[in-house]
Amino acid sequence: MKSDPDTTSRRRFVRRGIALGSGLLAAPGLAGAANGTGPADAAPPNDTLKTIHSLRSIHGDFSERQVSDKDLQTILEATVRAANASNMQSYSIVVVREAGRIQKLTGYRGSRLLVYCVDFNRIIDTAKHLGYDFYADNLQEFITAHTNTILAAQTAVIAARSLGIDSLLTNGIHRGDMQRVWEILDLPRKSCFPIIALILGYAKSEPAFRKGRLNGPGVIHDGRYRHLTADELDALVRQHDDKSQHLGLVEDWDRHGHKHYLDWFFKEWDAEATRPAAKESQIFSFMKKSGFIDLQGV
Amino acid sequence: MKSDPDTTSRRRFVRRGIALGSGLLAAPGLAGAANGTGPADAAPPNDTLKTIHSLRSIHGDFSERQVSDKDLQTILEATVRAANASNMQSYSIVVVREAGRIQKLTGYRGSRLLVYCVDFNRIIDTAKHLGYDFYADNLQEFITAHTNTILAAQTAVIAARSLGIDSLLTNGIHRGDMQRVWEILDLPRKSCFPIIALILGYAKSEPAFRKGRLNGPGVIHDGRYRHLTADELDALVRQHDDKSQHLGLVEDWDRHGHKHYLDWFFKEWDAEATRPAAKESQIFSFMKKSGFIDLQGV
Repeated sequence: MKSDPDTTSRRRFVRRGIALGSGLLAAPGLAGAANGTGPADAAPPNDTLKTIHSLRSIHGDFSERQVSDKDLQTILEATVRAANASNMQSYSIVVVREAGRIQKLTGYRGSRLLVYCVDFNRIIDTAKHLGYDFYADNLQEFITAHTNTILAAQTAVIAARSLGIDSLLTNGIHRGDMQRVWEILDLPRKSCFPIIALILGYAKSEPAFRKGRLNGPGVIHDGRYRHLTADELDALVRQHDDKSQHLGLVEDWDRHGHKHYLDWFFKEWDAEATRPAAKESQIFSFMKKSGFIDLQGV
Repeated sequence: MKSDPDTTSRRRFVRRGIALGSGLLAAPGLAGAANGTGPADAAPPNDTLKTIHSLRSIHGDFSERQVSDKDLQTILEATVRAANASNMQSYSIVVVREAGRIQKLTGYRGSRLLVYCVDFNRIIDTAKHLGYDFYADNLQEFITAHTNTILAAQTAVIAARSLGIDSLLTNGIHRGDMQRVWEILDLPRKSCFPIIALILGYAKSEPAFRKGRLNGPGVIHDGRYRHLTADELDALVRQHDDKSQHLGLVEDWDRHGHKHYLDWFFKEWDAEATRPAAKESQIFSFMKKSGFIDLQGV
């Protein structure tokens, strides 16, 4: 968190309506690509790629239709198939079924919620059971486990979509007082950290378009990292202004007197990031409580 | 990194041959499930789920067959479709094509390498171009970007598998002197952090079995987090000893005089984690250099 309370509030408020947008798709293969370099995507060559290209985030606009236990089980069997370091599965997934608790945790409504946590407690408990200690007391362990956790989460997103189930990945659990997440879910205070929330449900209506993505220079680097040139930065600004590319979070940014979409983004949306952090972020403070920051106990 | 150089070396050495194992599959649907609670997986109900259940990690045993530019492009178009916070795509992907550089970076051979980096430099450069500052100077920004980055990486893994292309996700870039990664790839010193390496290629031979996974108590929690009971911990230990479940990294652990697989795991494989960290992890030190640890500049 940065310092300005007004901006922070606005960011929090607006973000609640946006979160992690995977974009909205009218029909696979129809939406234009937004890669700055290439033509529109060709039709995906197989069903898995069709599923991936049909991913979209539903920001709370789920219908009343519930995800069945059978489909949930299929998603959970798929999620664990992701790669993970040393086959330690250093994560836990808490399944939440009540709309009220889902809302309290994420700020959204939906049918089911999977809270993906970096978690070493099962491993620590097993070690102790066999007479060993186990320490996950540094950022190296955390980062490896964070990677494991998100590999599993995205596998669930794609598995769900293949079953016609929509989703929203949201870091809503990191907004507001994070303490509530530990309390609502009875999470262990140590060596456990809720990292992403995955809400599952069925979209109320088909989104009208698919969100654009950059996939040219500045995102994909050939061989070595290369900073963009001034001309390329100009092109990037223009791409964001081109509403047909759907790169922006809002489409009415120009009504607010901004010359470019990215002016809106830097002045209004993410204004707090245009100043150095003035205090410790809530995440850093909770990471310390969970014991993942190096040499705290030394 | 922990203190014991011998153990660290062993861990590094052995890990080099294992990395992030997603498991090995003889044929989809044939391998037994290892969930501790349920029956073997039924045949996946659609092609996307078949792809997910056929994921396996190839630890350097790739054939000479090269990934085509067309397939690589298909994978890169898929990878960016993952959800990402505020559609900022706070990542960069560096594509490496030379076997020698792939080996230097990861310790493995393969046809193509994608190095997924948390990266704010494109955003910082664009902000500056428009007259703004942008700071990614805290763990909150990093963790959100790490999530974005891995969501994209797993999408690439699944996209590749759908094209018959195998992969290895490895944190080999975090082993040895991490400085080499910045040097080999010309990565920006600030606000950029290489987080996972994805090697692509074709398996030399079909693996004989699929790695097992836990997907019962201790991994999936119903409603609230629950620690395992002593009986459940016993069952977990037995599950790891049951070689038909393929939960372990090695199958000859009992030749080393260990009573249980997990004795091997805690005594030999991850012995450094059974002691408190005695010095700062390399990752923490590089995270500070990259400016992602809170209030360093204050």
